[in-house]
This record gives sequence, C-alpha cells and structure tokens, in this order.
Amino acid sequence: MQATHRPLALIVLAAGAGTRMNSDLPKPLHPLGNAPIVAHTIAAGGALEPARLIVVTGHGAEQVEQALAEIAPEAVTVRQSPQLGTGHAVLQAAEALADFDGDAMVLYGDSPFFTPETLQAMRIARSAHDVVMLGFHPADPGRYGRLVMQDDKLQRIVEYKDATEAERAITFCNSGVLCADAATLMGLLSKVTNDNAAGEYYLTDIPELGIAEGLSATAIACDEAETIGINSRAELARAEAQFQSQRRAELIEAGVTMQAPDTVHFALDTHIGRDAVIEPYVVFGPDVTVESGAQIRAFSHLEGCHVSSGAVVGPYARLRPGAEIGNDAKIGNFVEVKAAEIAEGAKVNHLSYIGDATVGARANVGAGTVTCNYDGVMKHRTEIGADAFIGSDTMLVAPVKVGDRAMTASGSTITEDVPEAALAISRAKQVTKPGLAVKLRDRLKAIKAAKTKD
Amino acid sequence: MQATHRPLALIVLAAGAGTRMNSDLPKPLHPLGNAPIVAHTIAAGGALEPARLIVVTGHGAEQVEQALAEIAPEAVTVRQSPQLGTGHAVLQAAEALADFDGDAMVLYGDSPFFTPETLQAMRIARSAHDVVMLGFHPADPGRYGRLVMQDDKLQRIVEYKDATEAERAITFCNSGVLCADAATLMGLLSKVTNDNAAGEYYLTDIPELGIAEGLSATAIACDEAETIGINSRAELARAEAQFQSQRRAELIEAGVTMQAPDTVHFALDTHIGRDAVIEPYVVFGPDVTVESGAQIRAFSHLEGCHVSSGAVVGPYARLRPGAEIGNDAKIGNFVEVKAAEIAEGAKVNHLSYIGDATVGARANVGAGTVTCNYDGVMKHRTEIGADAFIGSDTMLVAPVKVGDRAMTASGSTITEDVPEAALAISRAKQVTKPGLAVKLRDRLKAIKAAKTKD
Amino acid sequence: MQATHRPLALIVLAAGAGTRMNSDLPKPLHPLGNAPIVAHTIAAGGALEPARLIVVTGHGAEQVEQALAEIAPEAVTVRQSPQLGTGHAVLQAAEALADFDGDAMVLYGDSPFFTPETLQAMRIARSAHDVVMLGFHPADPGRYGRLVMQDDKLQRIVEYKDATEAERAITFCNSGVLCADAATLMGLLSKVTNDNAAGEYYLTDIPELGIAEGLSATAIACDEAETIGINSRAELARAEAQFQSQRRAELIEAGVTMQAPDTVHFALDTHIGRDAVIEPYVVFGPDVTVESGAQIRAFSHLEGCHVSSGAVVGPYARLRPGAEIGNDAKIGNFVEVKAAEIAEGAKVNHLSYIGDATVGARANVGAGTVTCNYDGVMKHRTEIGADAFIGSDTMLVAPVKVGDRAMTASGSTITEDVPEAALAISRAKQVTKPGLAVKLRDRLKAIKAAKTKD
Repeated sequence: MQATHRPLALIVLAAGAGTRMNSDLPKPLHPLGNAPIVAHTIAAGGALEPARLIVVTGHGAEQVEQALAEIAPEAVTVRQSPQLGTGHAVLQAAEALADFDGDAMVLYGDSPFFTPETLQAMRIARSAHDVVMLGFHPADPGRYGRLVMQDDKLQRIVEYKDATEAERAITFCNSGVLCADAATLMGLLSKVTNDNAAGEYYLTDIPELGIAEGLSATAIACDEAETIGINSRAELARAEAQFQSQRRAELIEAGVTMQAPDTVHFALDTHIGRDAVIEPYVVFGPDVTVESGAQIRAFSHLEGCHVSSGAVVGPYARLRPGAEIGNDAKIGNFVEVKAAEIAEGAKVNHLSYIGDATVGARANVGAGTVTCNYDGVMKHRTEIGADAFIGSDTMLVAPVKVGDRAMTASGSTITEDVPEAALAISRAKQVTKPGLAVKLRDRLKAIKAAKTKD
Repeated sequence: MQATHRPLALIVLAAGAGTRMNSDLPKPLHPLGNAPIVAHTIAAGGALEPARLIVVTGHGAEQVEQALAEIAPEAVTVRQSPQLGTGHAVLQAAEALADFDGDAMVLYGDSPFFTPETLQAMRIARSAHDVVMLGFHPADPGRYGRLVMQDDKLQRIVEYKDATEAERAITFCNSGVLCADAATLMGLLSKVTNDNAAGEYYLTDIPELGIAEGLSATAIACDEAETIGINSRAELARAEAQFQSQRRAELIEAGVTMQAPDTVHFALDTHIGRDAVIEPYVVFGPDVTVESGAQIRAFSHLEGCHVSSGAVVGPYARLRPGAEIGNDAKIGNFVEVKAAEIAEGAKVNHLSYIGDATVGARANVGAGTVTCNYDGVMKHRTEIGADAFIGSDTMLVAPVKVGDRAMTASGSTITEDVPEAALAISRAKQVTKPGLAVKLRDRLKAIKAAKTKD
Repeated sequence: MQATHRPLALIVLAAGAGTRMNSDLPKPLHPLGNAPIVAHTIAAGGALEPARLIVVTGHGAEQVEQALAEIAPEAVTVRQSPQLGTGHAVLQAAEALADFDGDAMVLYGDSPFFTPETLQAMRIARSAHDVVMLGFHPADPGRYGRLVMQDDKLQRIVEYKDATEAERAITFCNSGVLCADAATLMGLLSKVTNDNAAGEYYLTDIPELGIAEGLSATAIACDEAETIGINSRAELARAEAQFQSQRRAELIEAGVTMQAPDTVHFALDTHIGRDAVIEPYVVFGPDVTVESGAQIRAFSHLEGCHVSSGAVVGPYARLRPGAEIGNDAKIGNFVEVKAAEIAEGAKVNHLSYIGDATVGARANVGAGTVTCNYDGVMKHRTEIGADAFIGSDTMLVAPVKVGDRAMTASGSTITEDVPEAALAISRAKQVTKPGLAVKLRDRLKAIKAAKTKD
C-alpha cells in the first residue's frame, strides 16, 4: 500500500487488564492465528507503512514489551500507569511524538480485524477533515456509543447511557479507531476531562473538543466484523474461528485445494501457493510457506518451515522450525524434521527424526533413522550426501558425515564419517539357535505359573 | 451439594430395548463423552448424594449390570422382565426399597443431561408437595405429554393423543422425571392399570392417582436441553455434540486456553486446570487430569493419565492409562507412554514407547527408545534414574534398571542393570568398506535388469 | 437396480473449462469424497446398468481420458472441440450411438449428487413421454431456466433472461438432465441453432423442438440438493461437506458407531459394517472396507485396505493400499502397514513399519520393528510365521522369513531366515563402564565451555 499521504504514527493501545480473560497472560498476547492478538493489529496498521509505531503498555507491561521486541522490533513502547481511560492512554504517546510532524492513528491491541483497506480509507478521509473516526452499522446497535452525523460531518460521539431517544435511534456506532494530526490530537487530549462516573479520560471526547476549536470531523464506515474486540476467552475462541474462516476463504479463492477447509488451521503468516493440496487435519504454526504444487497430507503439523513445489509431506509429518523441504522431496509418516535441509527428491518416508542435518538430493533415508544430534550437553550436525542410502534404523551419531552415493547397513550405529560411495556397517553377526524360542517361552510360562501360585 | 433433605433413593430406568440404535450394545451403554450414557444419569443424580441407587435393567441386563459394577459399584440392580412400561419398571424397585424411609426419584438411563441443580430443585419442591414432576417448555411441544397445572398444582398428565384442543394448547410438557416418597410411590404404582392401547403401565398416571388419594402434586420446569433422550444413533451423535459443546464452554469459562475448542473432545471426567493450553485436535479418553499451566499440543490422545503443571505433551503424544507426567516434563512427538511415571523435568521427545516404567527427574530419553516390557509371556518394569541419559534407539529389556546419571550409548540393547554414573554400550564396531555401496547398487541393478528380462 | 427398461446410454458431459476453479487440474477430476467429481456422476448413472457410457471431454481431455481409464474402463470418450454449448457437446456422441437402439440420458461431470433413484424415475417417466427433463424447486429460483408445464406436459424451457413476468413466477427449474430416445435426441440436436447472444447450441432447446415434431415431453422433480453443480473451489468445498454429511448420516443409520461423525471423512467407496466403531479424526481414502465389529481408533488414516471383524486399528495407525487386517488383529499407534497381510489375532502395537509382508496368526511384532523391504533398487517381501515373537527394534532385511513360533531378540538385524521355533539374535554384548557417563558428561561440558569462550 503506497504511503501517498502524510507521515503516519500508529498508536496501539495494549495496556488493558483483560480481567475477563481469566488468565495470567496479558490479553494482547493471547494467541490468535498462532500470533499474539496485538500482532494482528500491528500487521494491519503496518500495511500502511507508518513512520512510527508506538505501543502503550500497562497491565503485564514487561511481558508485552518482551513480545513486541519479537513482533515489531521497531516499536516504541510507553507505559500507562495507572490506567485512566483511552484518552489518558493515547496521551502517554505525547512525548514519543513531540518531534513528529504527521498524522496519528489510534488502534487497539485487542481488536485484530480492522483491514488495511479500511485504515487506508481513513487516511484518505483525513485529507478533507481534521479528525476521522471509524464507525460501523451493527446488526444490534445495543449499548455502543453513537456517531452523531450531519451529512458527512461528525458532530459528536454520544455514549449510550447519555443519549436521547433520538440519538439512540442512530445506528452508526463508534469503533474507537481515530485518525488526526498528531500534534492536534495531543493538544485536544490535554483538554479532555475525567468528569464522568468512571473518572476516566475518554478518547471519544476528541471530535467534540476539536469542533469547538473550529476543526472539522468525519466518520467513515467499516463492516461490523472488523470491529470485533476480544475481552473473554469465549470471544477469543469466536475471533479465532472468524480468523480461520477468513483465511480459508482467501486461500480457496487463491486456488489452494482443500478437501475439508474447516479442518485446516492457519497462522497469521502462513503462505500457500496455488494448486497446493492441503488434506484434512493440518495445523500450521507460525512462519510456514508451502509452494505451489506441494502436497501436505492429513494430520501434519508445520512450524517455521518451507515446503517446495512437488514435495509431499505427511500424513503424520511434523516439520519444526528450520525444516527446508526441497522440490519433489518426500517426508512420510511419523517423521519429525527440525533445522534440516532435505534436498530435491530426497525421501524420509517412515518413523524418523532428522534434526540439525542436511540430506542430499535423491538420498533415501530408511525407516527408524535417527540423527543423534544431542550428546547430553551440545547439539551437533549430520550431513548426508546426494544419492546416499541410509538403511533402516541407522543411528547417525553427530557430528557425522555420510558421503554422496554412500550406504549404511540397516541397524547400524554410525559414529565415524562414511566416505562417498562407501558402505558402512556396524552389526553383530546373526546367530540362530534351533528350538530355543519354544524352550524359552516354555520356561517363561513355567516361571509365570510358579509366580501365580505364590 | 448438601443433603439437607430426606434420604433419597435414585431409581434409574435402564431396561429399554433401544431397537432404533441398530446395535447389539444395550442403549444405556453406548458411549457419550467417553462414558456410558447411563453414567451421566448416575453422575447427575449422584451429586445429590443419594442413600441408595437402584438401576432397573432388562434388555441386555447382564452387559448393563457388568458395566454398572464399574460405574457405580454401590448400585443395586433389579431386572424388569418382561418390559411392561415405565410404571412397571419402577415397581421392580419395590422390594429393594421395602425398608427405605425417604424419597425416591426416577431418572432415565437414556437421558443424560439433567443437571444436579434441576434435580435438587425438585427435592426442594418436595418439601411442599407429595409428588413432584419435572416439566419443560419445548420450542415445539409436538406430541409430548402435557402437564395440566392450576397455579403451582399439577392436576394431571395428559398424553397428546388423549388431549383436548385446550390441553394441546398447553406448552408445559412432561420430562418423565418424578420425585415422591418411596413408599407412597410404590403404593400408587400398584394401582396403575394397563388399560391403554399399548397395554403398558405408565408412570405418568401417578400424579392423578395421588391427587385422587388427597395428595398434592406439582411440577417444576427445566431447560429443554436437559430433557434430551437418546433413541437412535443420530440422536446420540447430537447428544455427543451437545455434551462436548457444554464442556468446552465450561472449560473456556474456567480459564482453559483452546485455540480451536470445537476440535477438542472431552470425557465426562476430564479435569483441566486454568491457563492450561489445549491445542487443536486433542482427544481425551476417560479419567484424565491436566494441571494448570500444562500444555497439550495438537493431535494428542490421552486416557487415564495425569499431566502436571508446566509439562508439555505432544504434538502426536499418546498417554495411556497410568501415565503420570511430572512438572515441566516433556513428552514429544510419536511417543507412547503407558503405566509409567515420568518425573519432573524428564524428557521423552521423539518416537519412543515407554511402558511399565519410571523415568527419573531430568532424565533424557533419546529418540527411538523402547522399554521392552513384554517377553511374550509376562510384563516387566524398567527403571531409569534421575539425570540419566538414554541414547537414541536404546532397547531396555525389562526387568532392567539404569542408575542415576548413567548413560546408554545409542543403538544399544540393554539387558543388564547399569549402575549409577556408568556408561553401558552394546554395539558392533563400525566397518567402512570403500566403494562397496556403489558396487552393491550396480549389482542390484544388474539383478533387477536380468529379472525384468525374464 | 434392475434394467426393466429399454437399453440405456449415458452421455456424461465433462468438457467444460472450469476457469473459476483457478487450477491446472480439469474440473471433473477435482476430488470429492476422495474420487474425481465425474466418478460420482458415473457411479450414480452406473447404478442404472447402462449398456453404453459415453463421456464427452474437451478441456484437459487427455488428463480426463487417462483418469476415466481407471474410473470406468468401459467408457467411450469423444472429444468436443471447440466447445460450443451443451447441445453441441451431446451431439459429439452421435457417432458413438449411431448403432444404438435405446434411450440416452445426459448427465454432467460437475454435478455429482443426482441419485440413482431420481435417474430411475426419469426412465419410468420415459415410458409415457418422448423427452424427459429433470427439474427441481429451488428455495430461490433466481436466474435458473424455467420449466413451463401444462399438467404433466412440458411445453418448453425458457431462459430467465428471455422469460416473461409470468414465466419468472414459475418455481420449477431446469437441472439440465435429460432422457430421450438416442436417435430422436440426435435428430433434434441437429436442428438446434446457435442464434443467441453466446453463439452456443443449447440442449434446453430440445423439448420445444421435439414438441414441434409432435413428440411429448415431461419433467419430473428432484431435491434441490441433488442438482448442485461445482464451478469454483468454494462450491467444491461445500459439495465435499454435503457429500460427507450424507455419508455420515447414511452410516449412522446403518448402525455404525461414531462419537464425532463430523470428524470422520469418507470416500465414495468406503464400506463400514454395523456396530463398527469409528473414533474421532479418522480419514478414509479410496477403497476401504471395515467389517462389522471392527474398531478404528482416533487419528487413523486408511487407504485401499480391509479391516476384519474384531480388529482394532489405531490410534495413529496408517493403513496403506494392500493392508489386510485379520480378525481380532491389532494395529497400534504410529504403525504403518502397506501391502501386508496381518493374520488373525496378530499384533503390531507400536512404532513399526510393516510393508510387503505377511504376519502370521497370533504373531506379536515388537515396538520399532521395520521390514526393510527396499534395498535401494528393488522391493522384497518379509514373511513372519504364526505365533512368532518379533523382539522390539528388529530389522527384518527382506527377503527374509521368520518361521512359526520363532523369536527374534530385540535390537537384532535379521538377514537370514529363522526356522520355526528357533531364536535369532544379532547383538553385541553389553559392556558397562563404571563412572564413565559422568566423566564423559564433564568432558563434554568442558569442551562446550571452551567453545563458548572462543
């Protein structure tokens, strides 16, 4: 989205207590689509390419700030303490914006569904008005604050409890999202009073205060679905369902094949190519890319990985962070791959753990193979060459290399490097003792019978 | 719930044929929330702390009685044969209640949703009336029997087909649940006739017979959702959905974190602590407790186990009966644990079977480890000490002990105890044969080519 | 269904471009219930036992024809190129029907839900009328073509855009399915013109043309749900949901036990017996039969396999094509079975791969067992005898046989046949080195500390 407008500062309010979540985790950090709720707000706002991002923290500030360092390292955080209302929260950003010449937009760390398109429309509206609010027409206006409009001019925002009958009949309601010149906003905020039952400073007073100073205010409308805020776990569960439902519809539209889309769970940052096939019961954790034409079979679990075109993953495959699956590679059932590159056409078909490793092109890794990457103290890497054949139940005690076209015999524990084209074996000779199985079983049965007698 | 009332006897009717279930399993034993339907009835009634529990069996009586010995060993069972109606069924309890001074409440083994609160409300109503029926106001009264009330007095119960137009207009319907003095009930039942089309003895005649003897009757109301009975597999599937939906809502309310609650399946006796995280696609079999702050990752399956605070289970973990997972322990992917205690901070991260075992605190069990607990005749135990390190693909041939801080080399089969701090290894030396892999493959290709020619 | 009528030729139109699918795969081949959409049409029509099956291909003709060779080897395919409308498409079948004396029925390769009962009803109607159309009464008639009837006579089909107000008020709409004498149909088709906005030849002109020649036409009605066509991935997803929902209801009705039917996914050709138990999260690929009284536990994935009565499969079992599970056999968690016969009462309980094998009756296969069926070039078979005991982590290097009542020691790699009753072992002696584990760990810690310093 092009920044054809004035520089923009996003102010994201993430200080609320979230008491109704019944949780020790601060509300903005509860996961939605495998990312903190506040990350959704920041992603939507981020699409506007803001010059500055300020997050107001409060409840659980340390935890929130720590998470933000991951989500948005560019964010400036300011603390609100005590928490005296939305107006007071935004005012905490005043210092961080003292030198800022541009617009400020106020978003909410518990309202993840506003779209970049809607926020962009607010900026466009800003070119004609000093203060822009975002409203919506809910199916049930209920007790929402009402936006009192005259033509395209916003007159004021009236709380439901203070509204006249005529005002209550208005169906255009306040979402809380606001855009205004940053300095103007801070100036107006300093005039907001807490002369109300809760003793709080409300952001909703801004339009009326602005108009009193001769500014012009307006409000544009978005879909009700965008305005959903999260205040309880039940609301979070509904928001998750809404998020998943939107992502599924988008991906179907984009040409992804899903037999049972309702059984596939995406993260905020999942990328899936056209004509990729996703079978039922697949869970995408954060940071996954599946290329066009790849296939993710049922009961697979992917996090932090990349699956190339033509690759087939699963069923029952678990790809952990750092798994890079090459073109036409195959990761089969009950296989775990972590921090490993599986090159083009390589196969790990059954019951294996490949961690901290590279597997060369067209290599075949037999069932029950384990890269023994941990010695109890450190992690080490395994390298398997192109066209190598790793026999079933091979233990690769890292650090170890198996060369191109080399082979390991099944049941071997490989502790030394295997040169290319060589065969490595570590195996005791098979000894077969006639009749002993039956004798042994009879003896065990006798022992059991004796024990039972005791 | 305190028993502030007269002693209570529960009479649970579980004799019906359940023909529409199209099954050899008696209807009351079909599973709902991983427990027999009748167990739900007994659990709800049991919350009233009844002095006596009588279950009337009939169809499949032996199977039902066997199951009851598990579900409610305190239950007295009486058989109804032949099955001549609900009144006749309750009358079978007469002998078992001959010496009983208190109230009797009639419940149904195919109606699992009545709540303890509703049943308790009936007892409270009993203090003012001789006979208490439970009614409800269905969305569609249809062909339900109608409760004819005058103020708070129940006049009679009228079957739909016998009802006048005025009576059919009544929306207060009969659930069948009844509470009355036990001796009074049995006395009235002896007067019920089978003078009807079906030739059966109906419990619904009781209020009218009682009133004729100068007793007072009333009916209180419950939600329609509580009255759901199960007569077909389709109804059972809907009941299961209702059960799961209720449990999910309760647990969300109690502070359990679930990304996709609709994909988590609970049993009647699942206990989950606050701020526990349950990822998508988790199935709880009977008798599972997950402590506060534990995490159950996707695609996990738990039965008869206990997961302590801070533990992480899954994805793809299967905990079977007797799995005790300690604080901060970790059970990873494709791991099965059965009758085993995994102590604090221990890790079994990949592709292992730990059965009939103890794993000490902070021990690390490598990928592909198996406790070989079965010798073909008997099961034996494995003991792994604290801080032990079990190398990948270790076979622990039980009975066997690995001491504290001991280590096993990967690929070893351990048949003798390993003292603490010792290292045990059973491994053939690796032999590496230069060029042999390529030669071998060429030879195999030649064989294949020759075969193809044949 | 008995063919009590004239010989029947099915003409299935499968030439459409399916542009809205946003896919390189031709629309009729997109999977529905794990079978191509067009396979559903052919299955429904096939129940009428047609004498001839003609499929009109066009877009992606080669791919469609290749798939048809699998789905319906008896099908004759004819190509439509260019694609000039439905009438033009049917006309391509003229040559293939030149020698055919009987009726022709036109079906659609993107309309999978017409039932055999409905199609049979059309044939019955044919005995009284020359042309039979299939209509339906949609909830919203919208822009569907209207069937203008007079009593039971169809007058003509009018496109919505050409319809008068009175005609638009008609709620009986055209599904497109048609039945008529084959020669008559082809004769009429040759008179259809493309005198319309799209310049296409429409099949819908047939009734009116027929009436003009003195023939009689009628239309019978089916449920709207049968008429659903698939034009986009979103519609495909809804069709899949409808298919699954129908199959679940049918199987519940037939006496299959499912705790959570919405989580079980069937294929077009899945067969499940009465009182079989299917736990949550089970996916059936093509060609699976589960006998009465078998149990498929949670998270299992089945394709091309047969599960006998009394067998228990899963949780987390994957049965691949050619898996034959005998009576009372047990396939446990994280077990993959492919092209293998598991005889009566045999057990493969944990973490194993059994491929290209036979497992004898009552044999017990230990955890972590692998049939090493691939030597890098060819696949070979493993045979395990009755009552054999395969110790945990046995590698069975195929081709290899383990005789009846024989035993393998856990951790063994078996390369030579084991005679019946014999015990085979390939295992290095365990060596235990006192104190070495602690020394080793201390050394590793020192190395790590040194590295960290660097």
